[in-house]
Amino acid sequence: MGGSSLGVGMIGYSFMGAVHSHAWRTVGRVFDLGVDVDMRVICGRNEEAVTAAAAKYGWQSAETDWRAVIARDDIDIIDVCTPGSSHEEIAVAALNAGKHVICEKPLANTVAEAERMAAAAQAASGKSMVAFNYRRVPALAYARELVRQGRLGRIFHVRAVYLQDWIIDPEFPLVWRLVKEEAGSGALGDLGAHIVDAAQFVTGSQITNVSGELRTFIDERPLVGETHLLEATKSAERGKVTVDDAALFLANFDNGAVGTFEATRFASGRKNGMAIEVNGEKASLRFEFESMNELWVHDHTVDGKDAGFRRVMVTESDHPYVEGWWPPGHVLGYDHTFTHEFRDFVLDIVNDRAPEPSFADGLYVQRVLDAVERSAQAQSVRTNV
Amino acid sequence: MGGSSLGVGMIGYSFMGAVHSHAWRTVGRVFDLGVDVDMRVICGRNEEAVTAAAAKYGWQSAETDWRAVIARDDIDIIDVCTPGSSHEEIAVAALNAGKHVICEKPLANTVAEAERMAAAAQAASGKSMVAFNYRRVPALAYARELVRQGRLGRIFHVRAVYLQDWIIDPEFPLVWRLVKEEAGSGALGDLGAHIVDAAQFVTGSQITNVSGELRTFIDERPLVGETHLLEATKSAERGKVTVDDAALFLANFDNGAVGTFEATRFASGRKNGMAIEVNGEKASLRFEFESMNELWVHDHTVDGKDAGFRRVMVTESDHPYVEGWWPPGHVLGYDHTFTHEFRDFVLDIVNDRAPEPSFADGLYVQRVLDAVERSAQAQSVRTNV
Amino acid sequence: MGGSSLGVGMIGYSFMGAVHSHAWRTVGRVFDLGVDVDMRVICGRNEEAVTAAAAKYGWQSAETDWRAVIARDDIDIIDVCTPGSSHEEIAVAALNAGKHVICEKPLANTVAEAERMAAAAQAASGKSMVAFNYRRVPALAYARELVRQGRLGRIFHVRAVYLQDWIIDPEFPLVWRLVKEEAGSGALGDLGAHIVDAAQFVTGSQITNVSGELRTFIDERPLVGETHLLEATKSAERGKVTVDDAALFLANFDNGAVGTFEATRFASGRKNGMAIEVNGEKASLRFEFESMNELWVHDHTVDGKDAGFRRVMVTESDHPYVEGWWPPGHVLGYDHTFTHEFRDFVLDIVNDRAPEPSFADGLYVQRVLDAVERSAQAQSVRTNV
Amino acid sequence: MGGSSLGVGMIGYSFMGAVHSHAWRTVGRVFDLGVDVDMRVICGRNEEAVTAAAAKYGWQSAETDWRAVIARDDIDIIDVCTPGSSHEEIAVAALNAGKHVICEKPLANTVAEAERMAAAAQAASGKSMVAFNYRRVPALAYARELVRQGRLGRIFHVRAVYLQDWIIDPEFPLVWRLVKEEAGSGALGDLGAHIVDAAQFVTGSQITNVSGELRTFIDERPLVGETHLLEATKSAERGKVTVDDAALFLANFDNGAVGTFEATRFASGRKNGMAIEVNGEKASLRFEFESMNELWVHDHTVDGKDAGFRRVMVTESDHPYVEGWWPPGHVLGYDHTFTHEFRDFVLDIVNDRAPEPSFADGLYVQRVLDAVERSAQAQSVRTNV
Repeated sequence: MGGSSLGVGMIGYSFMGAVHSHAWRTVGRVFDLGVDVDMRVICGRNEEAVTAAAAKYGWQSAETDWRAVIARDDIDIIDVCTPGSSHEEIAVAALNAGKHVICEKPLANTVAEAERMAAAAQAASGKSMVAFNYRRVPALAYARELVRQGRLGRIFHVRAVYLQDWIIDPEFPLVWRLVKEEAGSGALGDLGAHIVDAAQFVTGSQITNVSGELRTFIDERPLVGETHLLEATKSAERGKVTVDDAALFLANFDNGAVGTFEATRFASGRKNGMAIEVNGEKASLRFEFESMNELWVHDHTVDGKDAGFRRVMVTESDHPYVEGWWPPGHVLGYDHTFTHEFRDFVLDIVNDRAPEPSFADGLYVQRVLDAVERSAQAQSVRTNV
Repeated sequence: MGGSSLGVGMIGYSFMGAVHSHAWRTVGRVFDLGVDVDMRVICGRNEEAVTAAAAKYGWQSAETDWRAVIARDDIDIIDVCTPGSSHEEIAVAALNAGKHVICEKPLANTVAEAERMAAAAQAASGKSMVAFNYRRVPALAYARELVRQGRLGRIFHVRAVYLQDWIIDPEFPLVWRLVKEEAGSGALGDLGAHIVDAAQFVTGSQITNVSGELRTFIDERPLVGETHLLEATKSAERGKVTVDDAALFLANFDNGAVGTFEATRFASGRKNGMAIEVNGEKASLRFEFESMNELWVHDHTVDGKDAGFRRVMVTESDHPYVEGWWPPGHVLGYDHTFTHEFRDFVLDIVNDRAPEPSFADGLYVQRVLDAVERSAQAQSVRTNV
Repeated sequence: MGGSSLGVGMIGYSFMGAVHSHAWRTVGRVFDLGVDVDMRVICGRNEEAVTAAAAKYGWQSAETDWRAVIARDDIDIIDVCTPGSSHEEIAVAALNAGKHVICEKPLANTVAEAERMAAAAQAASGKSMVAFNYRRVPALAYARELVRQGRLGRIFHVRAVYLQDWIIDPEFPLVWRLVKEEAGSGALGDLGAHIVDAAQFVTGSQITNVSGELRTFIDERPLVGETHLLEATKSAERGKVTVDDAALFLANFDNGAVGTFEATRFASGRKNGMAIEVNGEKASLRFEFESMNELWVHDHTVDGKDAGFRRVMVTESDHPYVEGWWPPGHVLGYDHTFTHEFRDFVLDIVNDRAPEPSFADGLYVQRVLDAVERSAQAQSVRTNV
Repeated sequence: MGGSSLGVGMIGYSFMGAVHSHAWRTVGRVFDLGVDVDMRVICGRNEEAVTAAAAKYGWQSAETDWRAVIARDDIDIIDVCTPGSSHEEIAVAALNAGKHVICEKPLANTVAEAERMAAAAQAASGKSMVAFNYRRVPALAYARELVRQGRLGRIFHVRAVYLQDWIIDPEFPLVWRLVKEEAGSGALGDLGAHIVDAAQFVTGSQITNVSGELRTFIDERPLVGETHLLEATKSAERGKVTVDDAALFLANFDNGAVGTFEATRFASGRKNGMAIEVNGEKASLRFEFESMNELWVHDHTVDGKDAGFRRVMVTESDHPYVEGWWPPGHVLGYDHTFTHEFRDFVLDIVNDRAPEPSFADGLYVQRVLDAVERSAQAQSVRTNV
């Protein structure tokens, strides 16, 4: 593998591919990594499309077979951006080949897959990370710092939602994210995974049991001709939606806290409404992604007359990740979280540290999602009024 | 009973007594009721205290025995403001005596009590209402109007919380609200009842089953010397907290919607954080009590480029209840909701209409709370991760 | 005059009369005044209307001649709610008769009138107060406390607006508030007076000079048939608008701060948008009336990483005026500010203290308004681009 | 000059240089420009520093003499990022050499300089643009669209502020931005220029005259050892602050609207608080940079019962500039505005269109700033209270 440079090979190139490319292109220009990061190869099944993507996004070469990417000596990092159904195969092969692997979330479509991936990661010489990018929002990274410093004390409540509204229209087509074989689950894995991880990240605690509900509001949708990003050509025929449109669950944490979680694509008016609130005995924290540069902090040790939620603009140079960017109040956006993620991953490789969130952390998230699914299927979870 | 006037007798005189007195004093001065409302008698067990309260709040007389109040011919309306444990006895006696009865929420401490109260109300000649005052917030009354007009279409989600933080301190004493025998339950009945009713009111739908969690974070607290309103003198001895500090549940509605509900007294930084959001296929609504003059409305039928949540100041003269008050933007407060409640109750009496929410509506709420308690006790409700 | 009771006579009974009546009815029931307050007489020119108002609002009697009210021995307090053009005559007569006088704002229509009123107040045995009710918003009273405690340090900036939108429609009729002879000025005196006083109140500093603009956007409007509150019957004929629709000015304060002020009835979407921000070297404060239970406080002495504007719910029992009302988070509204105002005025009478804001304070406001008008008329105030 | 590629030479490399580099690196990867953009040379006086900057930011070469950059045949675009004192000399030389020139704001330090620059731009064959990047915030670009579509009707009010707080500490050193010779003015040119341009951009109207105030709150500051970005090493000696700390002015627009403007570095708690509100007869718009993905729109033609400010997330694919980026609700940040700016400039070059804002637009801004300074110096602008 490369000496003072790290070669990156990215598998997959749709929405996630675009933002990953942006972050790989940016990370070494903004942060001091101690190594060059080279965008060596992008990989996709459609040769014409992937060649165009390479030119567009600035990759040095294109491949159509991910195995060929893994086989290349000049590739140190494999970045897995494909749908969940292929995560295990690609990631395990890459780990076994000694590569460092960063894998999009959710880690896998099933617990069994995730277990094999975590085992492979454990055994591998390369580093591995699951790409829960919201951990790299400066405000959430700062929230974690505050919890670690003991500023919240005993935690009572976690309240997390991830609300979107892009498939309310029954004529929205049956894209891959609505098909269980490819996506594993619907809102649960796509959105719920993020907030389960965010809760784990911010509080430092894990969920021990859940009561869950899954709901599919629209059962059938127009079949897709061809898919591009989140849009797709519709056909007249209809197919069955095999994933959840919405997932809700109550959770008990190992630190004694209770939590409510909700992930949905049917919250009209909510675009990327990821939000989390944590209530502790000494402080509370609140975060909403659409205002991602703000962390709301209530200090409960202050005299009640002066207390209240404070809007902290997490844009000071000593806030996490901000040192590479702009002056206070000059806000960051969604793509910056990926740049931060790659910064951390590369620095962990360079400094031989274990990246977080690990594949084991990703496995934990998968187990929570699985428990929600099992709970939702059980009749006993519901008590009649 | 009175001819062109209605005589009111109020049983109980602590926090709720103060705000009820304010509303009885105000209602006929602001709204045209077609009848005079006379504050004839206030009733409490401590003669000295209730006499002082009568003078303070403007009641014409004071009694120490609620039966004596019911026996009085000049009393048309019995307003029950006592803790839940005495609701049934007083309300049923009053109904049986032919009085109109407005009863504080929750209707009762148990389903059995509530059933007997609803039966008595059904059989009685007088009118009855359970005092879910949040129905009388203009913004929530307007929300109901929008749902009734079909502006939301099919409803997918209800998301309701009632967050307070006044008993986080372990030295906060064991007031009656923390004792099951008096209060029936804790956050569940005190706060959860409000949001269960608000969901029923706004959506026009009822919950069919739930999965619930109850949690008591602080098990023991200093015993109380003497209680006044929400404050109390502490003693050195400690007693057991026998109610929930927090209640959380998932709910399925009879219209196919799913809901999350959370009521707690341990959300540090949240003072009276009652909030509800409803997501429909054509619109969404959002309300937070601490900004009670605002209703946030997202119209999903608008072009996405122009769409978003709109902050409607519910202070226009054609908004519910506002005609009696001030010009646009001249905001109302908590006590106005009681004035509106009594306005509706008196007008229903005068015009011989069935008040809402009825004791049957209150019984429904009680059944939901009971299902949450039963669910929380069942082990089967939880699925291990 | 009355012994252990104070008799109130109110002159005027439209919008301000309704809210004043509500406050007189409420003040002694909520606050301990040490004296009874009796609503003895309401006065208006139209006998039928004033008699109806007396019955509606709970006044013991009605008069059509304000001189008769002042002549009554059982009247201790004269509450002047008429348009500005009659303030001087009524208030000075009442003061000369030994009454206590509370007078609606602005104190007068001209500086000369205000000077005579302030002189009369100075010479009188009775107490006097000008009714800038926003001083009695708990959040603004708390803001004043913070400034007095030195929490802001040196003050650099005041930024105040009062934005409404009720006369944008050119067909809105020529009500008395748009006629110079009755109202004195337009947005300047009606709205601008409030923010000039609020700046004086919160900062404890006064304006020494200004640069101003006045603007009348709609020159002619339909003449009025009959006026009621803010509504009016229109006639086909049109008359000239003789007051400003909007008033803007820059101000220099005697403490070295600079300020911007804007009052308008043409800010579409703004209903009662009174807002003030003060930036000091150690802290900043921000207030918006439509969210009147909140004060936003930035503490600049805190580490930048944790700093930001904090939303203080000014509803704690130790916040100004709140002790008489409800628990934390149970918000107050517009009318409560009048109840607080009368509480302070009555307590000042009972305890022989000088009420604030005094007629001298009102005269200062009048002088600022006058300077704005003089500035707006001067060509020299404008520099061409 | 290059055929299917455009070579860029950037003069200056501090804060603005970093963000410009990021944008030049990104623009062709996100937007279809029809041409390659090559980062050919970065120029600064310190050879070691500029060589490091070239490597860090990804420029192909470094120069220490800007004349050498202009002399290079492979450079098509000169990007001027230096302090205002050198804008004229560099930009005019580049224009005379046939280069396209994009120049940081404010265009110049004096009207005379700006006039010569605008004349040179007028005479030149190359394109020119002044870099008011806030025009490229999608929300403000969308605001301009709404005004152009006639959605606001007649405009009454503009209300613009740009509030920062980074020099409140008297020990903050005398950096170049506080020295008239280098910066031209203080908050006025640095911040005020942005809001003058934003008002021009959004409303399509220009200011005809002003009344202004300038204020320097801290007269002397520690002299600087060496400056880097916004930070600097202090020395024990002190020097005179020769620019304004705060600038405020009233403005009359050629469309009859009135405006208030305020720019300051002394608004404690405000980090990058650029905000503008426009009130029209049919709609109002409100924007705050720290929430730059939101535009608040009030539609005054809607029934008052349903009206209010609507929070439009300007992240839909058909909003300005968003098509190149992420799905709805996946917010953009400060640096994206520069990428948008360069996209527009390159597309204007490729398509032979006149870029906006032109140097003439920049000259207009300079004239407004100059009028504010002249007004502030005149005694006649102030009317005593």
